[in-house]
Amino acid sequence: MMKKIILMTSLLIVNVCGAANTTDISWRKLDPKHTILMTLSQGKVVIELAPQFSPKHVAQFEQLTSEHFYDETTFYRVIDGFVAQAGPKEDSEKDKSVPILKVEDQWQTNKDFLFTKVQSNDLYAQQTGFSNGFAIAHSAKEQKAWLTHCPGTLAMARESGADTATSHFYFVIGQAPRYLDRLMTVFGRVVYGMEHIQSIKRTSTIEGEVAIDSRDHTKIIAMQLMSEVPKEQQIILEVEDTESDNFAKRLVKRRNRENEFFYNKPPPVLDVCQISVRSRMLNKEIKK
Amino acid sequence: MMKKIILMTSLLIVNVCGAANTTDISWRKLDPKHTILMTLSQGKVVIELAPQFSPKHVAQFEQLTSEHFYDETTFYRVIDGFVAQAGPKEDSEKDKSVPILKVEDQWQTNKDFLFTKVQSNDLYAQQTGFSNGFAIAHSAKEQKAWLTHCPGTLAMARESGADTATSHFYFVIGQAPRYLDRLMTVFGRVVYGMEHIQSIKRTSTIEGEVAIDSRDHTKIIAMQLMSEVPKEQQIILEVEDTESDNFAKRLVKRRNRENEFFYNKPPPVLDVCQISVRSRMLNKEIKK
Repeated sequence: MMKKIILMTSLLIVNVCGAANTTDISWRKLDPKHTILMTLSQGKVVIELAPQFSPKHVAQFEQLTSEHFYDETTFYRVIDGFVAQAGPKEDSEKDKSVPILKVEDQWQTNKDFLFTKVQSNDLYAQQTGFSNGFAIAHSAKEQKAWLTHCPGTLAMARESGADTATSHFYFVIGQAPRYLDRLMTVFGRVVYGMEHIQSIKRTSTIEGEVAIDSRDHTKIIAMQLMSEVPKEQQIILEVEDTESDNFAKRLVKRRNRENEFFYNKPPPVLDVCQISVRSRMLNKEIKK
Repeated sequence: MMKKIILMTSLLIVNVCGAANTTDISWRKLDPKHTILMTLSQGKVVIELAPQFSPKHVAQFEQLTSEHFYDETTFYRVIDGFVAQAGPKEDSEKDKSVPILKVEDQWQTNKDFLFTKVQSNDLYAQQTGFSNGFAIAHSAKEQKAWLTHCPGTLAMARESGADTATSHFYFVIGQAPRYLDRLMTVFGRVVYGMEHIQSIKRTSTIEGEVAIDSRDHTKIIAMQLMSEVPKEQQIILEVEDTESDNFAKRLVKRRNRENEFFYNKPPPVLDVCQISVRSRMLNKEIKK
């Protein structure tokens, strides 16, 4: 099975290569009150929200979700390698009915601020790491921390002004656009079904190509709080505990890359957005 | 149209925001002899090969393509956020029939080595940039350069040893795994239809989830050299000339982010894998 395969770097495939063991993972339960089930025609997506970091955005998103606000809305701005953005019809009554949010783009820390460190002095931040499953960045000098834009990040869209977000949101679907950090409110992350986000229909075109009709935009069949989904339809997930020793050990291993596959040793660095935080499903065997 | 949208960062959508103009782009024709048309059930993908950087891998890949070697092969190892890998059935006669390649993971430069510079001292390299449309990295100290793993990169898979690649290949579909640089032979890049690569069926699962049956793996309907495709079925593309002044100007603009949308100024840095090299279609209007 090791033939012609490039080195396994994700626990998704440990059963194949035997390089790691799922018993070495510390798990954490998701809170169904802060977990979203989004149903697309291509499959189900689970999102963990971040009330501890972006409380107002999460509260509004949960409120709208509870009211079935997002059901039947579409991904109307989908740019390959960048973002998939959804929301109600521009300037509709529904669109204008939603309160404006004050941006939650970073938070104050102090010298005792604790998180699981990943990398010092990457291109964009003094320090990167994880906190409660989320990729974060930190400036000790400024005593500020923020959720960082990685693939699978959920953030609220806005107009030019900082405090202009309402209900439109986007998922990052390409190389981390970290220049948007501290400029947008990140408030969740995809923990299951990212491939379905990746197969949302692109709406942008290159010169010479005809765009898809807006009637063919990918539609959200349903957006629900997991706690409001009937028990038998819930997807019960646990996610890797990024505060655990096991997770810290995995980071060390990943940085050092002690494997004969690496005949040239890569630099001992880690891109915080290139580290997947694992999930596992507890309640049922869902066919991919 | 600017309502509720996050800032445009790609020319894909310049017509919407008016922030750039397609007349400011210098274009370069693809050589159909070194261009691949890959047909999947979900759509057509165009790949530019890199004979100037990885001549032996490109020659072998072109030879196999001409012989219809890849038609009906499947993507049997597809890990969300990482790679989509294809090739013939493991250890089949077809698989074993292919000559082994010597790795082409980097090349010698000299003090006069010229390329379009993007960033000094990012996490993985002394210098990043572009050469002939490809994202590269360079060490002036070692006088070595290499094609760097970005989303859309095409590279040859291998076993543990350096010189073990034959015909199995992969596309990068997630955050750039740049720790694989100088360890794998990168030999092409997707210039059209990346969304179809992104919708290749994932074969890896999380704990508790049932994998798809191998009969449902995404199949390559046809892999052809563009020069061998009947004229009326060819997709004629031009790509942005990364050696042009216009491209260099765009990099400067992107780094500085002079737009009111950026109420906090991001660090003046650029991730080479976060810069898209544009394409345009010349011959016909293909519906997305």
